[in-house]
Amino acid sequence: MAKVKIYVTPKQGVLDPQGKTVEAALHTLGYKNVAGVKIGKYIELELNARPADREKQINEMCKKLLTNPVIEDFTFQVVEA
Amino acid sequence: MAKVKIYVTPKQGVLDPQGKTVEAALHTLGYKNVAGVKIGKYIELELNARPADREKQINEMCKKLLTNPVIEDFTFQVVEA
Repeated sequence: MAKVKIYVTPKQGVLDPQGKTVEAALHTLGYKNVAGVKIGKYIELELNARPADREKQINEMCKKLLTNPVIEDFTFQVVEA
Repeated sequence: MAKVKIYVTPKQGVLDPQGKTVEAALHTLGYKNVAGVKIGKYIELELNARPADREKQINEMCKKLLTNPVIEDFTFQVVEA
């Protein structure tokens, strides 16, 4: 059983209105030294697969369901449980 | 200028309906070897503060705006730019 951590971010050049809104709110709160806020998703899951098959399956799951490959990038990390 | 990566997850014991839904969807797609799906947020931002002040400010921003401390936990990582 492995623990998988998946980080999903908006692709470079794709509008990130949620990030812009949060950045404006941080400025309003007085944190003017913050820039480039991007908001994505963080997904944790447990995967019961042979080490050799893991990477392929995670890539598949990300492309089919977990991310929108048109507008999002993803990276992942496998932590041995 | 430092790059900050913030990981927000639902607290242990808090219902995560989005995670449950995604887990069910993965099972429907045939990925029955997946369990414990949790969905959180991943936030990236650039912070222009002295190294000594960074941690305090990030904690403050997380508690005031970026997370809901009642139902969410967060961890962060500072990457020197």
